[in-house]
Amino acid sequence: MSNLLQSYAQGRWFTAADDGTPLASAVDGHEVARISSKGLDLAGMVEYGRTVGGPALAALTFHERAALLKQLGMTLMAGKDEFYELSRHTGATARDSGVDIDGGFGTVLSYASKARRELPNDTVYLDGPVEQLGKKGTFLGQHIYTSRQGVAVQINAFNFPVWGFLEKLAPAFIAGVPSIVKPASQTAYLTELVFRRIIESGILPEGSVQLLCGSARDLLDHLDGQDSVAFTGSADTAATLRAHPQVVSSGLHFTAEADSLNASILGTDVTVDDPEFDLYVKQLVTEMTVKAGQKCTAIRRAFVPEPLMDDVIAAASARLATITVGNPASDTVRMGALASIEQRDEVLKSLRGLTKSADIVFGDPEHVDVVDADATKGAFLSPILLRADDKTAPEPHDIEAFGPVSTVIGYTDAADAVELAARGKGSLVASLVTKDASLAAEVVRGLAPYHGRALVLNAENARESTGHGSPLPVLVHGGPGRAGGGEELGGIRGVLHHMQRTAIQGTPNVLTAVGKKWVTGADRVHGDVHPFRKDLAELVVGDTIVGGPRKVTRADIDHFAEFTGDTFYAHTDPEAAAANPLFGGIVAHGYLVVSLAAGLFVDPAPGPVLANFGVDDLRFLTPVKAEDDLTVTLTAKLITPRQSADYGEVRWDAVVTNQNDDPVATYDVLTLVAKPEENR
Amino acid sequence: MSNLLQSYAQGRWFTAADDGTPLASAVDGHEVARISSKGLDLAGMVEYGRTVGGPALAALTFHERAALLKQLGMTLMAGKDEFYELSRHTGATARDSGVDIDGGFGTVLSYASKARRELPNDTVYLDGPVEQLGKKGTFLGQHIYTSRQGVAVQINAFNFPVWGFLEKLAPAFIAGVPSIVKPASQTAYLTELVFRRIIESGILPEGSVQLLCGSARDLLDHLDGQDSVAFTGSADTAATLRAHPQVVSSGLHFTAEADSLNASILGTDVTVDDPEFDLYVKQLVTEMTVKAGQKCTAIRRAFVPEPLMDDVIAAASARLATITVGNPASDTVRMGALASIEQRDEVLKSLRGLTKSADIVFGDPEHVDVVDADATKGAFLSPILLRADDKTAPEPHDIEAFGPVSTVIGYTDAADAVELAARGKGSLVASLVTKDASLAAEVVRGLAPYHGRALVLNAENARESTGHGSPLPVLVHGGPGRAGGGEELGGIRGVLHHMQRTAIQGTPNVLTAVGKKWVTGADRVHGDVHPFRKDLAELVVGDTIVGGPRKVTRADIDHFAEFTGDTFYAHTDPEAAAANPLFGGIVAHGYLVVSLAAGLFVDPAPGPVLANFGVDDLRFLTPVKAEDDLTVTLTAKLITPRQSADYGEVRWDAVVTNQNDDPVATYDVLTLVAKPEENR
Repeated sequence: MSNLLQSYAQGRWFTAADDGTPLASAVDGHEVARISSKGLDLAGMVEYGRTVGGPALAALTFHERAALLKQLGMTLMAGKDEFYELSRHTGATARDSGVDIDGGFGTVLSYASKARRELPNDTVYLDGPVEQLGKKGTFLGQHIYTSRQGVAVQINAFNFPVWGFLEKLAPAFIAGVPSIVKPASQTAYLTELVFRRIIESGILPEGSVQLLCGSARDLLDHLDGQDSVAFTGSADTAATLRAHPQVVSSGLHFTAEADSLNASILGTDVTVDDPEFDLYVKQLVTEMTVKAGQKCTAIRRAFVPEPLMDDVIAAASARLATITVGNPASDTVRMGALASIEQRDEVLKSLRGLTKSADIVFGDPEHVDVVDADATKGAFLSPILLRADDKTAPEPHDIEAFGPVSTVIGYTDAADAVELAARGKGSLVASLVTKDASLAAEVVRGLAPYHGRALVLNAENARESTGHGSPLPVLVHGGPGRAGGGEELGGIRGVLHHMQRTAIQGTPNVLTAVGKKWVTGADRVHGDVHPFRKDLAELVVGDTIVGGPRKVTRADIDHFAEFTGDTFYAHTDPEAAAANPLFGGIVAHGYLVVSLAAGLFVDPAPGPVLANFGVDDLRFLTPVKAEDDLTVTLTAKLITPRQSADYGEVRWDAVVTNQNDDPVATYDVLTLVAKPEENR
Repeated sequence: MSNLLQSYAQGRWFTAADDGTPLASAVDGHEVARISSKGLDLAGMVEYGRTVGGPALAALTFHERAALLKQLGMTLMAGKDEFYELSRHTGATARDSGVDIDGGFGTVLSYASKARRELPNDTVYLDGPVEQLGKKGTFLGQHIYTSRQGVAVQINAFNFPVWGFLEKLAPAFIAGVPSIVKPASQTAYLTELVFRRIIESGILPEGSVQLLCGSARDLLDHLDGQDSVAFTGSADTAATLRAHPQVVSSGLHFTAEADSLNASILGTDVTVDDPEFDLYVKQLVTEMTVKAGQKCTAIRRAFVPEPLMDDVIAAASARLATITVGNPASDTVRMGALASIEQRDEVLKSLRGLTKSADIVFGDPEHVDVVDADATKGAFLSPILLRADDKTAPEPHDIEAFGPVSTVIGYTDAADAVELAARGKGSLVASLVTKDASLAAEVVRGLAPYHGRALVLNAENARESTGHGSPLPVLVHGGPGRAGGGEELGGIRGVLHHMQRTAIQGTPNVLTAVGKKWVTGADRVHGDVHPFRKDLAELVVGDTIVGGPRKVTRADIDHFAEFTGDTFYAHTDPEAAAANPLFGGIVAHGYLVVSLAAGLFVDPAPGPVLANFGVDDLRFLTPVKAEDDLTVTLTAKLITPRQSADYGEVRWDAVVTNQNDDPVATYDVLTLVAKPEENR
């Protein structure tokens, strides 16, 4: 068997029709693999995704997809050693591989978890509340998200061959959209290996994921308005893709994550004796050297109060001097190789641009001592720290040297730091190291329009901080302007990027049927059996129990005040209560109203309802006075079986009305309800 | 004074350097105005918006911007007669003008109202809950939205000279982003008049809105990643703009609302005798003739169960025959002129395409009887109904005749209707007329991925329905694929399109300072004064009162069960309660816990706290057993003064803990708190 990487297309592994292009080890230049997509039927892959993968995913609920992702994440995590082994050829140290490999699998598991907790056990997601569009309540609006009926083409960068593809794939999978994964050639061998294990696991539905190794050729020609392209890489390539005729005219969704001149700011409140000073320097050096600085999120611009520039440079240089460069297989090595000789040459070219307005204060672009490697064969480079004394010179704000390179730039005050950071024209992330929460608020609010993420670090959170450079699955990743204007991840936000939002207008019954969630005004089912006696399989949306009326007496109010200690004047002092602009006299406690309502709807004997675990959106609408008669109407609103438990959640709509049918309180009651014995 | 339209740029009215291009009345061809942007400093307008309008808006909160919009909407509404008068030259009947003029002002008022009710009284919007990023709670995440630091360029279509610009301007204004409005030339005289009244009113901050009459020339060259372009018009122009170098490379936000082959489906359950049959036909004719069919949302494809095609065509033709065409100034006229002779020629060209696969069954493209007008001078056209017997022929699904033209197409079942509607390759809206909610759910879930809006009409909601063709400010407007892939309106969703989402990471104190909303783990302020004794000006986020401990006895539980009637076995039956998997013995009622907690935190005497109007997100976390000691900690979380009331809303964080410091219940308490006497 040759070492030609395969693609996985239309349900089978495909071997290209030619010998392919060699891919060299970053460490010693030997050929690790070859790559080619010659002969691959790209139109067929798109069609297969749409017609096989899409329907297979559509047959699963969000929770079912989540269960598969969880199983996949666990399986991959259990077999990760071989990925670490192969990852070394990319120049990655074990720590670097952890970011990529464990980071990727962790993202898969995070999406599995978020989807179970935050999405319904259905294929449609409801967005926002019902909007009443007419006075009588017969014409309502509800926004829903449904899965796009196309494929998600994912064009990844070389620097994260595992995380890079999984952070795109996981949200698309949860959204029910099949993926076509196209790794960057340079490190595609690692993507291919992980992908092979995914396919071998048999966990994911056929067609839900396909792999394209090699050139994407005319892939975009086959896409249309239901498809999407998510690109990570250079701004130039992003612009080329964005100008593609299909992207321009079909209405397909294109997102890019591109160049980013990320900033890290040392707060004006920090002195050299503060622990925050060390945190700043340590974070800077970490970001320069992890993945040899080949991270879209690495710190390129280090903004430091002008009086501290010398101190920061001295401290950072001292720390950089301890970074051992060399063969990532060696235990003593702290920084491995860049991904390729070509990549190193790119960095050196960028460095020549930077040195037009900045001076190198640490490192030698021409020389680096390496451990356990041949510096002439591997793509090694010393960390390089620069100092720009002209803070407005364009180069440090414009040139992204995609390697272990940062520039220290002085600034005066918070407004200056914000203005200088904005000169990056939009970045993925900025960080601020400060002890001062007020300063943080000022700077962060200023940075935010230009950044996808902003991290504030200090001694209090340093131990828990995941760091300037780490995108997290639960937070959005992406940035405005130069950084591409895209957004990925962010928990369910990343899922919704793959779905179409649609405003639905109709009667309450129609919205209930579409959303599978009971809507006020829809039919209520008044059966012979108390709904609390129905298990999760018997209960249907709309099942209703009406309790009451119960008269509330002044004695009840007095007693409740005494019993609970809630002697607020509106419940106890007739004169003061009469002066209250909202009540005009003694009113019952809101908590009394909902307590009595529970007494009216509860069915006391043991049954499928296990517990009331919460209440949402309780609003007191009409004051309850003594002698008012209360009636409660409780209606099953949303039924969410759990995939891996003997029960599910049932949300009930509760309305308490008085003798005039005025609603006095509305809320949702949350209960756990058992599945039928046979389904446990 | 010539009738050359002016632009409003950089704080003054600008008159072009040439004579401009004449704009002809749609009704009789006379010159209504002239238009030109020659000599207009477009780069200067962009810079002015950024440096004058942006900062002026940034100085106002969402609520303050809303108050201005409300004032503006009322002012415009009061003076609308002159707009109706001028609107006739566009070919619009009074009813058509209502859609455009009242619709536009209504959108402004809707945004004012939504912003007051759904946005904080601040400049930053918090998106989603706090995410705990570490186990100890020192490192948290919170997404925020901040205003983009650029301009919103709004390129509008000719068909809605008032609504079209206001539906883009209102959300941008609330978002704090200055607008540059560019109307389509054909009907720009009406936009210019409304804009003139806006400027004259002096209500909006200088620089927040500018008007560009005439060619946009090189406007896009001056935009960058903080700017946005929202375009409504043809798909061809949208594609041209999308391929513009600045759109491709700067990361600016581009949205389009373009061609749309909207579908209306008559449900298979409907018979000719049902009221829904008449509703379907009536809606079809309305959509064909309002604005002479020049609506992006008009019904182009009428999908009818095959057996009912003849009936629908007969009924629709009978109704179309009653539509009087002519001078919109005439009371008897039901349909006015198209916007221009050129526009009518475009429609006739499209009709020639459609007739390749469809037959005209009503109307004559060459002839129409007109009332009170000269058919040779005005842009009049008969309504044209076509019938396509080959339901899969491409023309009816591809060609948008932007006038009073629809095609009736037969279908077999729900899946067929969904598949045929999808052949439009993405549309703004589809409607379904049916009595059957289950059928509605099936069809709507199928339609949704291809549509921005879906309306289900039946006899129950017909009186309240705003109709197939009406975008509403509270619902999203836009559509996937061919319809442009954009989204506007949708209440606050439309505001957020103008803002940057950023993930903020930091300690609880930092997130509290950034978001002005107290975050669990942040400092609590324990003062000498009970927070309920502080008015809205005195109270600060973090103000805290601790109450308790109070012991809960078995007698309390027994008594509460008896008093409220809530005798659920977990509170009353030791044996059954012990068998419950979650409790393992008698537990206190959740409502008892929160009632006692209120007794512990309430300050009884009259004071600034006027009422507890609700509770949010109540969760019972640990069962409370007899002899447990409860303590409550109540902390001011979010303070929202109302612009036009003597009080504001204060949201309190409530945590009830037991003697082991385990949280037993967490929730938000919502109160109304008075402003200080002097501010009322």
